[in-house]
Amino acid sequence: MSRLSLNTATTKHWTLEEAVAGAVRAGLPAVGLWRDRVQEIGVARAAAVVAGAGLRVSSLCRGGFLTSDEEAGQRAALDDNRRAIEEAATLGTHELVMVVGGLPAAPGPEQRAAAYPGGSPADPARDLVAARQRVADRIGELVPFAAGHGVRLVLEPLHPLFAADRAVISTLGQALDLAEPYPSEVVGVVVDTYHVWWDPDLARQIARAGAAGRIASYQVCDFLLPLQPLALNSRGHVGDGYVDFATITGWVRDAGYAGDVEVEIFHEGVWATDGDETVRTLAERYVRHVLPYL
Amino acid sequence: MSRLSLNTATTKHWTLEEAVAGAVRAGLPAVGLWRDRVQEIGVARAAAVVAGAGLRVSSLCRGGFLTSDEEAGQRAALDDNRRAIEEAATLGTHELVMVVGGLPAAPGPEQRAAAYPGGSPADPARDLVAARQRVADRIGELVPFAAGHGVRLVLEPLHPLFAADRAVISTLGQALDLAEPYPSEVVGVVVDTYHVWWDPDLARQIARAGAAGRIASYQVCDFLLPLQPLALNSRGHVGDGYVDFATITGWVRDAGYAGDVEVEIFHEGVWATDGDETVRTLAERYVRHVLPYL
Repeated sequence: MSRLSLNTATTKHWTLEEAVAGAVRAGLPAVGLWRDRVQEIGVARAAAVVAGAGLRVSSLCRGGFLTSDEEAGQRAALDDNRRAIEEAATLGTHELVMVVGGLPAAPGPEQRAAAYPGGSPADPARDLVAARQRVADRIGELVPFAAGHGVRLVLEPLHPLFAADRAVISTLGQALDLAEPYPSEVVGVVVDTYHVWWDPDLARQIARAGAAGRIASYQVCDFLLPLQPLALNSRGHVGDGYVDFATITGWVRDAGYAGDVEVEIFHEGVWATDGDETVRTLAERYVRHVLPYL
Repeated sequence: MSRLSLNTATTKHWTLEEAVAGAVRAGLPAVGLWRDRVQEIGVARAAAVVAGAGLRVSSLCRGGFLTSDEEAGQRAALDDNRRAIEEAATLGTHELVMVVGGLPAAPGPEQRAAAYPGGSPADPARDLVAARQRVADRIGELVPFAAGHGVRLVLEPLHPLFAADRAVISTLGQALDLAEPYPSEVVGVVVDTYHVWWDPDLARQIARAGAAGRIASYQVCDFLLPLQPLALNSRGHVGDGYVDFATITGWVRDAGYAGDVEVEIFHEGVWATDGDETVRTLAERYVRHVLPYL
């Protein structure tokens, strides 16, 4: 289990201290932290709790939400991301995961139709090409600050299901294109099985990411159908869905990735389960479906 | 409206004869037919009805479901697709849309876990690479028959949301790779806005498809959020969702596509609406959001 990390979103109802204690009880060496649980007790104390337990912080989730098309929104996003970079540095993790945001404003379709009765051409809310360019611009603005803090901006491609409302980076190849202008120790990528398992270009892009030294995190969970009422929460335990972990894990291994493997699950059923039982299950699944190919 | 086609799935509760009459009433020159409505009255009669009304058949939906990993399933799929090719020829359409199928067997996750307790490695149900290869193999087997009937196998990339259970072709680029070994008049691709709008490589792949003469159909409908309980039925009227029709239609135009534009909507609310009203709405939306960029 020397590379297995508990992402704290998986045990959503545990505080940071509870999650750290749970990881220790299960013999895990690392945790992936979410900022809400860090901020709850303050970043200095969070850092002390994790270090005191002898754990690594495999990543901090999450910066991002960079797609605003208004100056105030862009300034607010940069400010928030600078804070996230400082938090990552204080926590002693090199990897700040970035969920870059969806189409701007993101009201419902009815509100959009009302706001833009003339339709698409004058409608910045639907201009995906421009939203993606804004992500590239904001990343460029954050790179010097991240580099100065020894923190890597880790671009997370999200499943295309979330392109409208959560992340306009939809493939690993696109994330690597965005990363390419910058040193690999300052801009990296996540390989999250839920988001990328379907990609016909995945083998090639994982190899490319590895060759460039940009794989900053390997996150595992399964893709469940039918989708849950809130689609985001359709991430299941490894082995419960459709992902071919043997194949994808082998590609990640062959790409030279030697870092931690985070288990990050969003699912009401998992969240309703006792935390220790969830950690036991994820460790068992990891040992059965991931570790042999790592 | 000289390029606007009513896909009969949009007016789901109309018989083929009703759909043809509805298209004529609205001044549309073409219909895209689904096989269930064709078979209901027999293919010869369906052909006579459409021709008698002076309409074109822009495409026949659908062949496909080629991913079975068992010989009997593969044989059945080839037989059914040969019938579909014959039907397309009889109906006088060159374009047979292919939805290629998801991972084989496609039971629920629980059944899969029970069937494959050893996990991924021995589990053909999760081997996406192999499923995609079987699609390539079956296409190769169908090409001579299609060519002999003057029918084009039109590969449809489906949104990655459907990679597990409906179509292992997930991007336009992948569809074009599969088409590449064959003449463009025998294997083509669909550009369906719902399925491809999110693709960061879309502009390039549409241009590639056009240059190769492989765009066989342009299908339009919008991507709605939140998803409907049955995710497949989250296709909305043009303008109600997140798709940038101005941009994508411009790419399709610049790629040289001069064929019909089918409106294909799956949505309980649309299906519950009077057919003539649905056709009026789709025609209005087409004129506002698509036609100016075509």
